[in-house]
Amino acid sequence: MIIIGIDPGIATVGYGIIECITNKCRAIDYGPILTPANLSMPYRLDMIFEELNKIIKYYKPHDMALEELFFNKNVKTAITVGHARGVEILSAVRNGLDIYEYTPLQIKQAVVGYGRADKKQVQYMVKTLLNLGDIPKPDDVADALAVAICHSSSLKFKDLFLMK
Amino acid sequence: MIIIGIDPGIATVGYGIIECITNKCRAIDYGPILTPANLSMPYRLDMIFEELNKIIKYYKPHDMALEELFFNKNVKTAITVGHARGVEILSAVRNGLDIYEYTPLQIKQAVVGYGRADKKQVQYMVKTLLNLGDIPKPDDVADALAVAICHSSSLKFKDLFLMK
Repeated sequence: MIIIGIDPGIATVGYGIIECITNKCRAIDYGPILTPANLSMPYRLDMIFEELNKIIKYYKPHDMALEELFFNKNVKTAITVGHARGVEILSAVRNGLDIYEYTPLQIKQAVVGYGRADKKQVQYMVKTLLNLGDIPKPDDVADALAVAICHSSSLKFKDLFLMK
Repeated sequence: MIIIGIDPGIATVGYGIIECITNKCRAIDYGPILTPANLSMPYRLDMIFEELNKIIKYYKPHDMALEELFFNKNVKTAITVGHARGVEILSAVRNGLDIYEYTPLQIKQAVVGYGRADKKQVQYMVKTLLNLGDIPKPDDVADALAVAICHSSSLKFKDLFLMK
């Protein structure tokens, strides 16, 4: 089972691809998709779509896992990230992937075993569980791997988390 | 100059295509793209992308005009509409269209001549300016035509409204 985890964004999209056999996962590839700040939003969306299509076609993951978006303050940011997330979901569905959503609480619970874990603990556990030399940078990439790990640990119940 | 106006949404996307020569515009086609409520969000996004691609390839508009999104209450709705809007912008940029944004105030000013006009007045002026038999339904379609008319009246200054 190959899973791609995504941390959505317009300037930086974190992605992490893991392969899991029973409960053991290894990282296949991970990194950020970075879009130049001087590019207008439509071209940034196009670049994200193109890059993500290439990554999905190359590694052929079965499922995409995303964090549910929560914003309680900045609605403008929510809309912008919403644009990027829509394009990321489109790339997945057009390539035949099933798409799953997890709350931050579920991700922390799955990765650290504790729903109120902080960012550093999550990053440390991502490094440990995937047996990586360093914590992946930037944070968006570690977050993408974390949601992928979370999905791997939910496979028995995954229908519960299928995006509606 | 052929313009496509879009009223973004996930259940209903309004579109309106107009052709303008100097200050005179006529409606070429307009309608809603409707996505079934029982379809999951990824498939609704895919359907919107497919339908919009077909419409754009058929009518070959030069520019897309969209209303700027404002939400002051429901962030969840903002994110959902943001997903759809991202996919609509992607369809435009991948088909070579330039994309422009207008505020509700600018649209009302352009269509009615009064920035605080109400919905009914905008709809009546859309019908009158495009010489239509009836007010286009649902409201999303009239709104899509309104933003297209607004863009046509801003062509001299259009660089100001190019999406950043």
